[in-house]
Amino acid sequence: MIDEHQEKLTHYLAAFIEELVGNGVDEVVISPGSRSTPLALLFAHHPGVKTYTNVDERSAAFFGLGIAKAKKKPVAILCSSGTAGANYYPAVIEARYGKVPLIVLTADRPHELREVGAPQAINQIDLYGKHVKWSVDMALPESIPSMVKYARSSAARGVSISTGYPQGPVHYNFPFREPLIPNLQQVEFTSYQSVKTVIQGDRQLPSGYQHDLLDQLKKSNRGIVVCGPGIGEDAVQSIIAFAEEYGLPILADPLSFVRNGSHSKGNIMDCYDTFIRVDELKESLHPDLVIRFGAMPVSKALMLFLKSMPDIPTWVVSNGEEWQDPTARGTHYIQCEENLFCQAFIGKNDKPDREWLEYWVGVNDETKGLLNDGHESWDEGKAVHHLIRHLPDGATLFSSNSMPIRDLDTFLFTDDRSIRIFANRGANGIDGVVSTALGMSTGSQSMYLLIGDLAFFHDLNGLLTARKYQLDMTIIVMNNNGGGIFSYLPQATDQTHFEDLFGTPMDLDFAHAAKLYGAGYSKVSAEEEFIPALMEADQYKGINIIEVMTNREENVANHRKLWNFVSREMTRKMKGGYRDSSSE
Amino acid sequence: MIDEHQEKLTHYLAAFIEELVGNGVDEVVISPGSRSTPLALLFAHHPGVKTYTNVDERSAAFFGLGIAKAKKKPVAILCSSGTAGANYYPAVIEARYGKVPLIVLTADRPHELREVGAPQAINQIDLYGKHVKWSVDMALPESIPSMVKYARSSAARGVSISTGYPQGPVHYNFPFREPLIPNLQQVEFTSYQSVKTVIQGDRQLPSGYQHDLLDQLKKSNRGIVVCGPGIGEDAVQSIIAFAEEYGLPILADPLSFVRNGSHSKGNIMDCYDTFIRVDELKESLHPDLVIRFGAMPVSKALMLFLKSMPDIPTWVVSNGEEWQDPTARGTHYIQCEENLFCQAFIGKNDKPDREWLEYWVGVNDETKGLLNDGHESWDEGKAVHHLIRHLPDGATLFSSNSMPIRDLDTFLFTDDRSIRIFANRGANGIDGVVSTALGMSTGSQSMYLLIGDLAFFHDLNGLLTARKYQLDMTIIVMNNNGGGIFSYLPQATDQTHFEDLFGTPMDLDFAHAAKLYGAGYSKVSAEEEFIPALMEADQYKGINIIEVMTNREENVANHRKLWNFVSREMTRKMKGGYRDSSSE
Repeated sequence: MIDEHQEKLTHYLAAFIEELVGNGVDEVVISPGSRSTPLALLFAHHPGVKTYTNVDERSAAFFGLGIAKAKKKPVAILCSSGTAGANYYPAVIEARYGKVPLIVLTADRPHELREVGAPQAINQIDLYGKHVKWSVDMALPESIPSMVKYARSSAARGVSISTGYPQGPVHYNFPFREPLIPNLQQVEFTSYQSVKTVIQGDRQLPSGYQHDLLDQLKKSNRGIVVCGPGIGEDAVQSIIAFAEEYGLPILADPLSFVRNGSHSKGNIMDCYDTFIRVDELKESLHPDLVIRFGAMPVSKALMLFLKSMPDIPTWVVSNGEEWQDPTARGTHYIQCEENLFCQAFIGKNDKPDREWLEYWVGVNDETKGLLNDGHESWDEGKAVHHLIRHLPDGATLFSSNSMPIRDLDTFLFTDDRSIRIFANRGANGIDGVVSTALGMSTGSQSMYLLIGDLAFFHDLNGLLTARKYQLDMTIIVMNNNGGGIFSYLPQATDQTHFEDLFGTPMDLDFAHAAKLYGAGYSKVSAEEEFIPALMEADQYKGINIIEVMTNREENVANHRKLWNFVSREMTRKMKGGYRDSSSE
Repeated sequence: MIDEHQEKLTHYLAAFIEELVGNGVDEVVISPGSRSTPLALLFAHHPGVKTYTNVDERSAAFFGLGIAKAKKKPVAILCSSGTAGANYYPAVIEARYGKVPLIVLTADRPHELREVGAPQAINQIDLYGKHVKWSVDMALPESIPSMVKYARSSAARGVSISTGYPQGPVHYNFPFREPLIPNLQQVEFTSYQSVKTVIQGDRQLPSGYQHDLLDQLKKSNRGIVVCGPGIGEDAVQSIIAFAEEYGLPILADPLSFVRNGSHSKGNIMDCYDTFIRVDELKESLHPDLVIRFGAMPVSKALMLFLKSMPDIPTWVVSNGEEWQDPTARGTHYIQCEENLFCQAFIGKNDKPDREWLEYWVGVNDETKGLLNDGHESWDEGKAVHHLIRHLPDGATLFSSNSMPIRDLDTFLFTDDRSIRIFANRGANGIDGVVSTALGMSTGSQSMYLLIGDLAFFHDLNGLLTARKYQLDMTIIVMNNNGGGIFSYLPQATDQTHFEDLFGTPMDLDFAHAAKLYGAGYSKVSAEEEFIPALMEADQYKGINIIEVMTNREENVANHRKLWNFVSREMTRKMKGGYRDSSSE
C-alpha cells in the first residue's frame, strides 16, 4: 500500500515538475514546511532546477518576483499549508498589477481533512480571489496515464496562462496525503524537452515555430484535421486549402461551418461518427498526427477514437486562450487565429500524397451509401434527413442539444447549399433554446429550429417574444415524450426507476401551446406527412410548429440497427484495411 | 467645496468611530499610510481610544490579534490602500480559525480611481474572501443624517457580527477622496455611550439587559409593536400577551401569522396601511417607542411613517443574526427568540394604560368600516376581499408578490379562522411562485394561490409537476394584462414608453394553458361570477384556475378613490386627534 501511494505521488509530481521545467520554469523559491515536502524534494532532485529557500513566505514570494522581473521568465514559489500561502498575498497582488509571471504552489490537506479542525488546514481554494489569472485545486496524486497527462497538461497550461499577455500570477493548490515522501529512485528526469509545447501567438503563428511544425507535418503520412464548433466562418477556406495541400482528411463537426457551402469538399468527412465505431476499421484509420481546430466535436465516437490512440503529436489550435482538450492528449497548444495558422503552411508542400486521404474518402463514401440504404424506418433520424434536404439555400438551422445535434451529426451530409447550423455549445444546455433561436431569427432569413419535446417545454415561455415582435421561424419539435438521449445510456438497461428519473414523459399536447401563443401548428406521425408540413409552414409568416411524433424505444432500436448494418457491411467491404505505401 | 467635503468626512467617520467605541472597540493598531489618514486622525483624537502604531501591517495585525485574545474584546486594525491590506491576510485567517474578534479597516481609493492604474489601487473588495465573517465596501462619506445613521449602524453591526458566536474577523473597506484631513474642531466625542445597543442573546434575552429595557418600556406612553413576516408561528401568543399587558397596538403584516387565528385580537391593527396615509392623523399616531418583530412589513406607507418620526427608541428584535432594518432607525438590535423575549416582560406591569391603545383601536375600526362602505366597484381589491371571506378554516393561501400581497395587506381583516398566509418574501421575486405554492400544497389542505398574470406566466411550466403528482390547488389569476404595480409608480404618469417597458401586456388566454396541463378553468369578469367559481373549484380535485379579468387603470383609480374617501372621512371623524393624558 505505501509503495503504491509513493508511486502515485512520485510519478504524478515528477511529471508536473518536468512539464514546468520544459516550459521554462527552472527556478523555485521554497519556504520549508511539511505538507509541501513531496514537491520540495522533487524540485531539489531535478538537475535542471535551481532552488532557493527562505523561511519567511512573504519575503520568499517577493524574492521570486524579483527573479522573474530580472530574468523575464516565470518563477515558481512553493510553501506549505495553512497561513503560509496567505503570506504570499502581497507579492501575488504585486505580480498581478505589475504583470509578473509567478507560479504559486501551495500544499494543502486532502479533502477529508478540510474544515474538520485539522491543524494548519484552512480553506485554500481561491485563496487569492480575483488577484490570480488562474487558480486550480489539483486532484490528489495518481499514477494512471490519464492522470499523469492531466498533471503535465495542468503544468503547461498554468505556465502558458501566467506568461500570456498580460503576464501575471497563477495558483496551484495541491492536496497531499501522508506519507509525504516520494521515491527519488523512481524518478529519471531524462527528457528536459517537454512533450507539451505551448505556442502563444498574437493572432499569428510566431515564425520561430513554423519550421519545426512544418517539419513534423511533412514527416507525417497519416495526418487528420478535426474541425469542431467555434471556428471562425472566415477560416473555412484556409483550412480546406491547407488540408488539400497536405492530403489531410477533415473530420468536420456539423457546427464547424465546414460541411456545407460552396467551397470544395474533396477532403471533408461527414460520416465519421458512424464509421469510426466500426472496430475492424479503427486500426486502419489511426492517424500519426492530429490537428484540431475549434472545440471538441459533438461525436462521442470520435472522442473515444482520439483517446484510444497511442501517443502521437496532437496540435490543438485555438483562436484564443481556451484549452479545449478534454482528452488531455494535446502535445502542442497553439494560440493562433485559424486562418493565419493555415496560411503559414500553404504553398510549402510540392508533392502531396493522396493515398491516405483516398482511403478515408472511400470509407466515408461507402458509409454514406449504407446510411442511405439501410435507413428504412420512419424515425427521428429520418425526419432530420428530410429536414436537411428541405432547407432552402441560405437557411439557418438552430439545433437544440441532446439528440437533435447528434442526429444532425449522423445525417448532415456535405453539399453546396449555404446552410448555417448553430447550437448553444458553450455549456450545452437544453435551457433557453427557443429564445436563442428566436434571437437569431432577428438576423437570419429562413430560420428553422430543431428541438426535442423536453427542451421545447423548458423554454415554452420564449414564444411570447415571437408573437410580440412578429418573428418568423419554423419549429420542428421531435416529440418522443421525454428525454430521448437517456435511452442510449447505461441506465436504460435497468427499467426500475428509468421512466421516473430519466424518461420523464410529459404527455403534453403542444397544440394547446400553439394556441396560447397564436402559432401555426401541425402534427406529423408518418413520413409522408412531414415534407408537406414543412412546405405548408414555409407559406406562413410567424411561428409555425411542426410536432413530429416519435417513439423513444423505436429510435434507439433503429439507430442501433443502422449502426450494426453499417458496421457489418463495412467490415466485409473494407477488408484488408489501409496499408501505408511509404512504410512498405 | 473643501469645507463641505471636510464636513462630510468628519461627521461620517466620527459617527462610525463613536459607534465602534460605544460597542467596546477602544484599541486600534494603526499602520501609517496616506489614504487611511482620516480614520487614523479621528481614532487618535478620540479620548477613549488607545492607539498603537506599527509600520509592518503583518506584525500590526498579529499584534492586534494578541490584544484581542488577551483582553477578550474586539480590536481594530487600520491600514492604507494597496497591498497593505494583503499583509493582514495571515492574521485575518488566524482570527477566523482561532475565533478572535478582529475589526479590519482598510482605506481605499474612491470608485473612479479603481482599475485605472492609479498608484496603490488594487481590487480590495472581498479582499479576504471567505475568511472574514462579513465584508462591506462602505459608501463614500456623506454627512446627511441618513448616511451618518448608516455609518453608525454599520459600525454596530460589524462589531456585533465579529463578537457573535463564533467570534471572528470582519472587514470594512473605506473609499476616501482627497483631501484626506478631517476637521478635528468639528468633533466632540461627548457621548461615549453609543445610541445603538446590540444585545446578543443565545436565543434568550441576557438578564443584564432586562432591567434597562423594562424601565424604558414602563416610561413609554405611546409604544407600538410592529410584526412583520418571518416570526415563528409559536411566538404569536406571547407577542399578544406582551402587547396586552403593556397596552401596545400591534401593527400586523398579513404574513406575520398574527392577523388570523383563534387568539385574542383586541390589540391587532389590520388597517394601518390605509389610515397611516391620512396626513391629519399622523401626528396623533406618532409613537414614543417602537418594538419590531420579524422583517419589515410589506406596507410602504408604514415604512414611510416609521422613517418620518423624530428619534425615538426602536427595538429591532430578531430571531437570528439578520439586521432587518432598512430604515436604519434601530437603537437596539436584540438577537433573541421572540417568544423568550416577550416572556421576559410578561407579568411585570401592574397598571396597564389603555388610552393609547383605545385611540388606535378607534381609528382602526373606523377605517375598516369605511373600507367596507367605500369599496363599491368590482376590481382586484374586491376579488381579494371575497376570496378571503371564502377561504375555509384551515386553508393555506400563497400570495404572489407585487399587487396580490398589497391587496391582502389592505383587505385581510382579523378573524378567528385559522388561515395561514405565505409568500416568498426573502427576495420578493415574481419567479417560481406557482412552483413554490405547489410545493407547499404537498403539506397543506385547502391550498389557494393568489397571483397576477405576469407571475403566473413566468412559472407556467411549474404546472407540469402538479399534473404529474396529482396536486390539488385553486389558482386565482388576477389578469390585468401586464404589470399592474407599475401603474402605481411615478413612471405611469408619462405614457410615452409606459406600455412597452412597464405595462408589458401579454394578451394571453390562459384557457389554453389550462388545457395544456389538464387543469380546470373558469373565467370571471363580474363580481357575481366569482364566488360561484370558487365554490365550483372547491368541488374538483387537481388544479383549478380561476382567471379574474380586471383592468389596470380601473384598479388604480378605484384604489386611489377608496384611499381618498377614507382619508376625507377619517379627517372629519377623528378631528382633535389623540391627547396623551399622562402628558397633560
